[in-house]
Amino acid sequence: MESTQLLDILGNKNRRKILQLLSSRPCYVGEITERIGLGAKAVLGHLDMLEQIGMIRADTNERRRKYYQITKNLKLEVFVSPYSYTVETSTVHQHPTEDGIEEPFPVRAGDAKAADALKELNRKLLELESRRRGLAEQQRNIEGKMTDVMAQCIDWLHEVAQNYMEADILMTLIKEPQNRRSLSMNMGLPEYFIEPHIQSLIERGVLHERHINNRQLLTLIDG
Amino acid sequence: MESTQLLDILGNKNRRKILQLLSSRPCYVGEITERIGLGAKAVLGHLDMLEQIGMIRADTNERRRKYYQITKNLKLEVFVSPYSYTVETSTVHQHPTEDGIEEPFPVRAGDAKAADALKELNRKLLELESRRRGLAEQQRNIEGKMTDVMAQCIDWLHEVAQNYMEADILMTLIKEPQNRRSLSMNMGLPEYFIEPHIQSLIERGVLHERHINNRQLLTLIDG
Repeated sequence: MESTQLLDILGNKNRRKILQLLSSRPCYVGEITERIGLGAKAVLGHLDMLEQIGMIRADTNERRRKYYQITKNLKLEVFVSPYSYTVETSTVHQHPTEDGIEEPFPVRAGDAKAADALKELNRKLLELESRRRGLAEQQRNIEGKMTDVMAQCIDWLHEVAQNYMEADILMTLIKEPQNRRSLSMNMGLPEYFIEPHIQSLIERGVLHERHINNRQLLTLIDG
Repeated sequence: MESTQLLDILGNKNRRKILQLLSSRPCYVGEITERIGLGAKAVLGHLDMLEQIGMIRADTNERRRKYYQITKNLKLEVFVSPYSYTVETSTVHQHPTEDGIEEPFPVRAGDAKAADALKELNRKLLELESRRRGLAEQQRNIEGKMTDVMAQCIDWLHEVAQNYMEADILMTLIKEPQNRRSLSMNMGLPEYFIEPHIQSLIERGVLHERHINNRQLLTLIDG
């Protein structure tokens, strides 16, 4: 799924509520309208949209009642700063379950045994959550450092660029080496418009064309 | 800033374009309308909205031309799966730099030394980016494991919960121990509605009330 699609989806309060509700368990349409406090027609519209992009799926139970469930494990990350705007969507892969924990289900255990198993899983979950938080913290730290470095880049850009267009080209390539086409897409400007500036930057030894991972890319970094 | 505000902001294509543009450098209103390809009135409406929630700031240069720049370092993370829906916004801290960004910069002469400095900073930036990616990968890995554990929790929940309401309460508390008020808010249901179920779960030894970080929380995990 594209990040822009996901942002469009999440930009609506009621769709967020629906996803939150379905993330606790699969729900019938009636339950959804009741909990969201919205008319059936509006709810069905949102459900349709979510189904069409493949975020949720509809099934019917043995009594032909329709219910919905989330089908994806999606992670969306947006970072906005004075120097960067990045949006990434990735699929989180569920692993085949590890060691002994998985039991071919439902073994009708007693209430007490099930409660113990649940407790144990809960401990594990909270431990994973604390590791996740630790990594997120480290990541934010690095993102802070990256923002610093970008701020310093801006200072030097003033010395190197001979006009705004060159400055924009360099700032885009500093963030990620890329070819002319993706540069033109990222800058929202036609290739013929940026080409003379690229040529000038190459001639002055500021930009280089290099083969990186089998692709011919523009970058500030030479050999 | 609240995550819901940020999602509302990012749910609009043109606001995303504006943020992307301003993330390359501060811009005058004229530049923005030109690059976004939208009428001045619409652009000003979006800029107003972004300014009001404090994401961008307007300044005027010595010729009284108004320009905008991004003022925040924000990170938004959304995770959606069949078992969880989490949205987190955090501020990424930049280390203080001597001079922040000023107005759209005046262009100065080219300089070979500046190009070298820029190259060096670019190397640093790409190295930080690769570390960031590594951490993001590890984090997704853990999120995958968490999804696994939640799937297992669901299996056992069926054995423990005597009705849907109990199942919903347990699933919410498995993700995060919390008090009655936040539980009722998260579930979108009044406290008096969930209280009898909480009582029953406590009496059956499934739920516990514990002091954690000076707060009285409901949790599945005992002592």
